[in-house]
Amino acid sequence: VVLIDEGLELLTEPECLELLAGTEVGRVGLTIGALPAIFPVNYGMVDGTIVFRTAPGSKLAAAALGAVVAFEVDDYDRSDRSGWSVLAVGPSEVVHDIGLTFRVLDAAIEPWAGGTRTSIVRIRPEIISGRRIV
Amino acid sequence: VVLIDEGLELLTEPECLELLAGTEVGRVGLTIGALPAIFPVNYGMVDGTIVFRTAPGSKLAAAALGAVVAFEVDDYDRSDRSGWSVLAVGPSEVVHDIGLTFRVLDAAIEPWAGGTRTSIVRIRPEIISGRRIV
Repeated sequence: VVLIDEGLELLTEPECLELLAGTEVGRVGLTIGALPAIFPVNYGMVDGTIVFRTAPGSKLAAAALGAVVAFEVDDYDRSDRSGWSVLAVGPSEVVHDIGLTFRVLDAAIEPWAGGTRTSIVRIRPEIISGRRIV
Repeated sequence: VVLIDEGLELLTEPECLELLAGTEVGRVGLTIGALPAIFPVNYGMVDGTIVFRTAPGSKLAAAALGAVVAFEVDDYDRSDRSGWSVLAVGPSEVVHDIGLTFRVLDAAIEPWAGGTRTSIVRIRPEIISGRRIV
């Protein structure tokens, strides 16, 4: 069953999870002070959760508070005006578990940016939705 | 002067505005209920503001309330792990001005998705920042 929302096909949760697993750059949406913000990160999926490395800053602060954040991935092709996006929403947390930390390092979830990003943040997606241009 | 933030070069405001003007797909970050969300849109710049068309839904509702939203654009090249992102934050509003409406249509700010997107939303960027992987 394909549900259509204003010219967008709604993706199933398995489709969304597959797209999340196959993408390298995603965007974290959170609040800094009272203002919304969106920052790209290099990420990976570990045990069905979104994991990325970060330095001290707004993303780490949000995770330290267990803030619910948005995480978005998408891909577009301007030549034929096609594209899709997936949105995952859930609580973020700082990873202290040594076993998980090693698995993140093993999974080569490495920021493209230089600098010191030794903290690991995990988002547990609780609401997942996706759309594809048809 | 190039400021570096953890391996990221901070872009100047003119650089950010140039990147905003040269991109077709951006992402709106807003709150639905108490939950954060990020949705991609086709957009254009008109008079230094971000303008996009939308259908009734969360983005239009946010604009109707004058909500402060985030708007993000980025581009990446996985082959050499390069990339940049720009974040603009400011109040959103529904455009009722007929003159502006015609200019948006003239600027061919057309959603790639089908469906009926007859409402026009404008974001006035008040805080603009950008980063580039170095």
